[in-house]
Amino acid sequence: MKLYHCVGARSFRPLWALEEIGLPYELAMLPFPPRAHTKAYFAVNPLGTIPALDDGGTILTESAAICEYLAARHSPGELGVRPDEPDFGRYLNGLHFGEATLTFPQTLVLRYGRFEPPERRAPQIVADYGRWFQSRLRAFAEVLGERETVCAGRFTAADISIGYALLLAEFTGLADGMPEPIRAYWERLKARPGYRRAIDAEARAATAQGVSDRSAPLG
Amino acid sequence: MKLYHCVGARSFRPLWALEEIGLPYELAMLPFPPRAHTKAYFAVNPLGTIPALDDGGTILTESAAICEYLAARHSPGELGVRPDEPDFGRYLNGLHFGEATLTFPQTLVLRYGRFEPPERRAPQIVADYGRWFQSRLRAFAEVLGERETVCAGRFTAADISIGYALLLAEFTGLADGMPEPIRAYWERLKARPGYRRAIDAEARAATAQGVSDRSAPLG
Repeated sequence: MKLYHCVGARSFRPLWALEEIGLPYELAMLPFPPRAHTKAYFAVNPLGTIPALDDGGTILTESAAICEYLAARHSPGELGVRPDEPDFGRYLNGLHFGEATLTFPQTLVLRYGRFEPPERRAPQIVADYGRWFQSRLRAFAEVLGERETVCAGRFTAADISIGYALLLAEFTGLADGMPEPIRAYWERLKARPGYRRAIDAEARAATAQGVSDRSAPLG
Repeated sequence: MKLYHCVGARSFRPLWALEEIGLPYELAMLPFPPRAHTKAYFAVNPLGTIPALDDGGTILTESAAICEYLAARHSPGELGVRPDEPDFGRYLNGLHFGEATLTFPQTLVLRYGRFEPPERRAPQIVADYGRWFQSRLRAFAEVLGERETVCAGRFTAADISIGYALLLAEFTGLADGMPEPIRAYWERLKARPGYRRAIDAEARAATAQGVSDRSAPLG
């Protein structure tokens, strides 16, 4: 399996999943955004977005879908939750929630607050989606309740999907408003050996391949 | 099972899935947005977003996740693609792609082009995400190729996820730029009896429950 990755981008999710499961993989680092810098990448992923996973010719481009795919195929009942487990619904919901509800709004905050040239910045959008994110995060604290992880009484790919949104919140500055139960949850995730291995693998590959841009979380 | 729905909102995805599978369900119509009009809804879904599916106390709130959940539990190998099928990866990717990549950008076009009061509209954002959507749609045409459906040689929940984004594009006006293969794909989806049943079920429930607002696709 070959994973295409930019430092800090959503492709960190599948990298983390690969390290948690312990699968062999090749990590191809790209400068951000690849659609501007690496035209050849369109032959791998016509969207030009990051990530792409090439699994023997099957191409996946949605980061949460890749985590679910790896978990269902290679770690059912562990990183993956099986359809016959009671928390299967919570699991799928967490996988989608981490991206659609917690990540996309932050990309607006980044884009119109930091990455666009000054004349195209839009403080209203930054404020709207900052508030949006924080309101969803407060609701997530309620959904999480006293649980250590999102579902099934163990760490799963749903925690990876949501964990990346929290990692991104440190970068966007939205982590400052994190409710205490979410902050504690995020500390637990970061303390995992699998998370540390993924961070280390990213740093090693970035150095070895000469790609070190740390401003790339828009995927 | 009880599905909470607003006319035209993302909750149309699970409604369509329920009709395709032929499951019994209760449809609760809410005025849009429920977080403003129906405070009691927060007891069902702390996020206040639409949809919510209550399946015997398990609450799901992400529309594509609900489709996947229903398909895996009640229609594996038909509406759902099983992990051991060759197209399992394409299936998961399509489920996530329909929401994260094809729907969210359109909500920005709607919000800042139509739903915000005039002084808060933002033509730049409308243009940015209109272009964003159309570029992703062109890439999707390439990914779809000659296929009749997204994957597995049959209609699956991934087509429901993407199909809703195309339905929304008719509402946002972004359907005008649809590449021909996508237009033909969308016509095939709309011709399905299951799609028609979902449209009819929505209309009947909206009339019966006195909720008829058709300006509600923001979820």
